[in-house]
Amino acid sequence: MKVGFQGIKGAYSEMAASKMFADSSELKLQPCNSFEDIFKGLDQGTLQYGVIPIENSLAGSIHENYDHLVNYQVWIRDEHFLRVRHSLLAIKGAKLENIKKVYSHPQALGQCAQYLKNLKVEVLPYFDTAGSARFIAESQDPTIAAIAGAHAADDYGIAVLQSSIEDNKQNFTRFFLVEKKNGQSQKKINSEGLKGDGKTSIVFSLKDTPGGLHKSISVFAIRDIGLCKIESRPLKSSPWKYLFYLDIEGYYFDEPVFKAIAHLGELTKMIKVLGSYKADQLGEA
Amino acid sequence: MKVGFQGIKGAYSEMAASKMFADSSELKLQPCNSFEDIFKGLDQGTLQYGVIPIENSLAGSIHENYDHLVNYQVWIRDEHFLRVRHSLLAIKGAKLENIKKVYSHPQALGQCAQYLKNLKVEVLPYFDTAGSARFIAESQDPTIAAIAGAHAADDYGIAVLQSSIEDNKQNFTRFFLVEKKNGQSQKKINSEGLKGDGKTSIVFSLKDTPGGLHKSISVFAIRDIGLCKIESRPLKSSPWKYLFYLDIEGYYFDEPVFKAIAHLGELTKMIKVLGSYKADQLGEA
Repeated sequence: MKVGFQGIKGAYSEMAASKMFADSSELKLQPCNSFEDIFKGLDQGTLQYGVIPIENSLAGSIHENYDHLVNYQVWIRDEHFLRVRHSLLAIKGAKLENIKKVYSHPQALGQCAQYLKNLKVEVLPYFDTAGSARFIAESQDPTIAAIAGAHAADDYGIAVLQSSIEDNKQNFTRFFLVEKKNGQSQKKINSEGLKGDGKTSIVFSLKDTPGGLHKSISVFAIRDIGLCKIESRPLKSSPWKYLFYLDIEGYYFDEPVFKAIAHLGELTKMIKVLGSYKADQLGEA
Repeated sequence: MKVGFQGIKGAYSEMAASKMFADSSELKLQPCNSFEDIFKGLDQGTLQYGVIPIENSLAGSIHENYDHLVNYQVWIRDEHFLRVRHSLLAIKGAKLENIKKVYSHPQALGQCAQYLKNLKVEVLPYFDTAGSARFIAESQDPTIAAIAGAHAADDYGIAVLQSSIEDNKQNFTRFFLVEKKNGQSQKKINSEGLKGDGKTSIVFSLKDTPGGLHKSISVFAIRDIGLCKIESRPLKSSPWKYLFYLDIEGYYFDEPVFKAIAHLGELTKMIKVLGSYKADQLGEA
């Protein structure tokens, strides 16, 4: 079973994919250059699944992946919250007090800014966290370090000098497991007899009427269906237009959910059900 | 008048600040290392204003700045939509066909991925767009280029090889102008006799009741007040909790808006009015 993720070996997306397929014995994780390559792979059948980040608690929603979810015929099968724990990695035998330079993606460096300031090191940008770990391994220089997930140390045969170095511990990323949509995708959520609470993700745009958003979420309120996420996204066009992302409680084929979404269809200009899946629980911060 | 922005000379934030103060003759733009430094500067009185990005049409909301808006006593005075146009910059006399390496922030490189692929160049990460322009200027190497705003070319005495090279032209960033909040901040929006449509930004969290979000936005719907932005942000705590960002149409002291927000206060656990300002119009894509 081929599962695509964006990045190289050791990426946080790879870690999320491993956790989502923890019970699978024939897992082949496939690094992809871009998010869109994952969607292309699903479309062309070279990938069975893709794992994509959709939202980070500090950085916000990843709109690009919402765009792909709208534009490609895919279906969300699962979600996973990954607690993002950054580690300082260096070659084996390197000592913290000898580290002069630290490489990583600017976002990871920013999330460890206070830690790095205290460390009094030069901070240098790299394309991605896992790439910086690989760079450290290749250099074999004991005075440089990378910031990446601790699992990347194993991948590249280097060591963890210090772990959980992020300034803000409320750092988690939500991942979606996606597959190519076919006649079976939607039925599976019914027949698989999923246990636990469900969630359904939809995207829609409103007709240009006053109080449109309030009316649209009424379809859930009158059926006592809770909202897990709501987000408006400004779209540049004439006139000013929005796209809304919504996650609601319940599986797509639960009767009130199914009826509420049909009802919402009466009020929207465009609506797309992106998937329905078991709700994941956040772990410890 | 000292106005702080995050980044170095030539940053997109600096451009936004210049546009917001186009009519001001005594403007001193102050580069700051981090977003929080801007808020600290406002707090300590070393800055009169700060200009911060709050949302990008491709990358999403910048949660860190919402955090600062909640935690510091500041007030949003204005908004500005900046169309993000990336340019390829190199030293004067450099030729496009001789460029071998292109440096920029990974996000900017990602937004020009298709363009760079066609160019067949090596792509290298840098901390920020303006910093990569400065690096090109310092190197005086005619085979390397940077991706940044065209205005950064002027700042560092280099040339624009090609402009508007971003793959997706629907790329704009929304900036807020913020000042330290005092007894006058809120009154100003009344007494200055602002013309044109207003907007008011609020942050709130809900009491844990069913249909809470629907009820909360009812306070606007029943008063025919339009919503411009809505976003839920997951907060890790026990139990699962949300923060909502909301922008509504109208000035804070417009009677229906003022009453609606007071009404919303009855339904929320926490509410903070972040500011009220003239609504900016999006320019051409």
